[in-house]
Amino acid sequence: MILKPLVLRLGPVGFAKEAWHSLEKVANVVTLNEDATRESFLKELRDPNGKFSKVRVIARTFDSAQQTGRFDREVAEALPSSVVGVCHLGAGYDQIDTTPLKERGIQVTHVPGAVNNATADTHVFLLLGALRNFSAGIKSLQKGDWPAKGHAGGAEWGHDPEGHVVGILGLGGIGRTIVDRLKPFGFKKFIYHNRRRVSPELEKGCEYVSFDELLNQADIISINIPLNSNTRHTINADALAKMKDGVIIVNTARGGVIDEKALIESLKAGKVSNFAADVFEHEPEVPQELKEMPQVLALPHMGTATVETAKHMEEFHVSNVESIIRTGKGRAVVPEIIDEEWLKDSKPLINTPL
Amino acid sequence: MILKPLVLRLGPVGFAKEAWHSLEKVANVVTLNEDATRESFLKELRDPNGKFSKVRVIARTFDSAQQTGRFDREVAEALPSSVVGVCHLGAGYDQIDTTPLKERGIQVTHVPGAVNNATADTHVFLLLGALRNFSAGIKSLQKGDWPAKGHAGGAEWGHDPEGHVVGILGLGGIGRTIVDRLKPFGFKKFIYHNRRRVSPELEKGCEYVSFDELLNQADIISINIPLNSNTRHTINADALAKMKDGVIIVNTARGGVIDEKALIESLKAGKVSNFAADVFEHEPEVPQELKEMPQVLALPHMGTATVETAKHMEEFHVSNVESIIRTGKGRAVVPEIIDEEWLKDSKPLINTPL
Repeated sequence: MILKPLVLRLGPVGFAKEAWHSLEKVANVVTLNEDATRESFLKELRDPNGKFSKVRVIARTFDSAQQTGRFDREVAEALPSSVVGVCHLGAGYDQIDTTPLKERGIQVTHVPGAVNNATADTHVFLLLGALRNFSAGIKSLQKGDWPAKGHAGGAEWGHDPEGHVVGILGLGGIGRTIVDRLKPFGFKKFIYHNRRRVSPELEKGCEYVSFDELLNQADIISINIPLNSNTRHTINADALAKMKDGVIIVNTARGGVIDEKALIESLKAGKVSNFAADVFEHEPEVPQELKEMPQVLALPHMGTATVETAKHMEEFHVSNVESIIRTGKGRAVVPEIIDEEWLKDSKPLINTPL
Repeated sequence: MILKPLVLRLGPVGFAKEAWHSLEKVANVVTLNEDATRESFLKELRDPNGKFSKVRVIARTFDSAQQTGRFDREVAEALPSSVVGVCHLGAGYDQIDTTPLKERGIQVTHVPGAVNNATADTHVFLLLGALRNFSAGIKSLQKGDWPAKGHAGGAEWGHDPEGHVVGILGLGGIGRTIVDRLKPFGFKKFIYHNRRRVSPELEKGCEYVSFDELLNQADIISINIPLNSNTRHTINADALAKMKDGVIIVNTARGGVIDEKALIESLKAGKVSNFAADVFEHEPEVPQELKEMPQVLALPHMGTATVETAKHMEEFHVSNVESIIRTGKGRAVVPEIIDEEWLKDSKPLINTPL
């Protein structure tokens, strides 16, 4: 018989039922009650005799924040001392404050890489839709404005890729995958800005420019940077003012990198001609104006929502949990924590009494 | 002083004002009254003393059919004997019956090629949207179903390109341009069907299959064939029955190549999981069901509606008219007429009295 550590799973299992089933060979899995709230969750975490008092690893989904709220300092400090890892099912882990967890010696894992293709596909869909003003057409057809309001139901004519400069803000795994997909379309040029220039073999022919140069030169701004305290509102009124008149903005990263109020003003003024996004600053709340404007193409955070990617992601997520259990360390620990000294001393959890 | 032939322009000038202005050096241009109907148009054509009685070339747009109706046998036979050419602003000229015009020795020109990129871009947008079920997400966000109906407002999870076979029905200029754009996305395989296999250098790695094999094997059917009496209802109940369960169909060719009633039944039955189209059988009328179904992504015929492509197309269109005037023969005469003996004897119209 083996001694199994306790895993708390927040959010439902989607497509990786087998992986979770298999994990139960080395872990006991508990879940949150359906009617749990942030308050009841915090209370249970703090209860020294409660069902979470011996939890070693917490595995959470993006949507579970609708029940528990963010994994902020309050949650971090409420965790029982038994917890050694918080595993996030997703690439972006802005819902988790890593600092208070690091202070307590708790590692955070995420799922990088697996989301690149699905996110890039979503990005290309949105970028083409924005360039072509297809949202206006979709909405006018829905409303019965075709042919009453003329050609394409009154939707203004969009543009071809020819002659247009794409500015990649954040040339990481997703940004590079987007560039690969956009290359055959015949855009004029690709430019990019990262905090640091990347090595030539990763540039894929994109020209490195400063942030201001990117704002000045791009006809289409493609946003692919993570959300954190440094990147919040990267696209604010100042940045918007530096852009070309009629610029197109596409965001599949996180809503919070854009100051949504400033963006809406720029859309109204025509400074930004089209906006396409899968993410919003206060999602799932989306400002009514962004829903209604014909020049806005909006998706309800479906960037990685495919059967294949969800399965890959969940399987990787479970493998993070299993790796902590078997080796003491997750497969993909987030950069803020990966180099911590205490992480190097991590011990397997299996057959290890608390 | 030169003797200028008369050109009848049907439909407004969009983006090629300069080209039309320049044409007026060699032609007098007349237009239809704004309140004209098919009846008044036919009457004016037949009037031996009317303003159209000496028209040599008619230059028409797709949307002008809303006033004049199709260029069918009735119109062809009503044309004054002065007419030598009908120029269509578009690649697909299914609105024109070429046979009765050919019988009268009237050439028909169109605008091939220029539409390939814009149509292919539209096709890729629709194909990605259908594969990912984005239409359901767009509609649920509009209706306020996010987050009320759960993840992505209740939209079902879509699919990644990986593992999916794309079947190109019609590997011509547009079909090939679509394949070029789709290649980086990671689809499993491209297959195609044309009446005849094309030469290897034009196949772009797509595998040639029979029509039935294409229906059997494709996860996504990409329609790029012209509409004519042979291709009408190519996708009918029989063809739909031979497709894979859950097949995706994308159409940017012409609505009439699909039996829309049979398609709607197949969508309701789930045989077709997603349908995305820019064209409809009886457009601009679109069945309410196709507008409302979450699994249908529909655009109001915007496939070539870009400023750049419209300008290229209109300029080519005007150059067809000018070529008839200066040489007797259009730049791009349609295949049904290009080899006619009488076309070889065409004479310039300029400085040629009727």
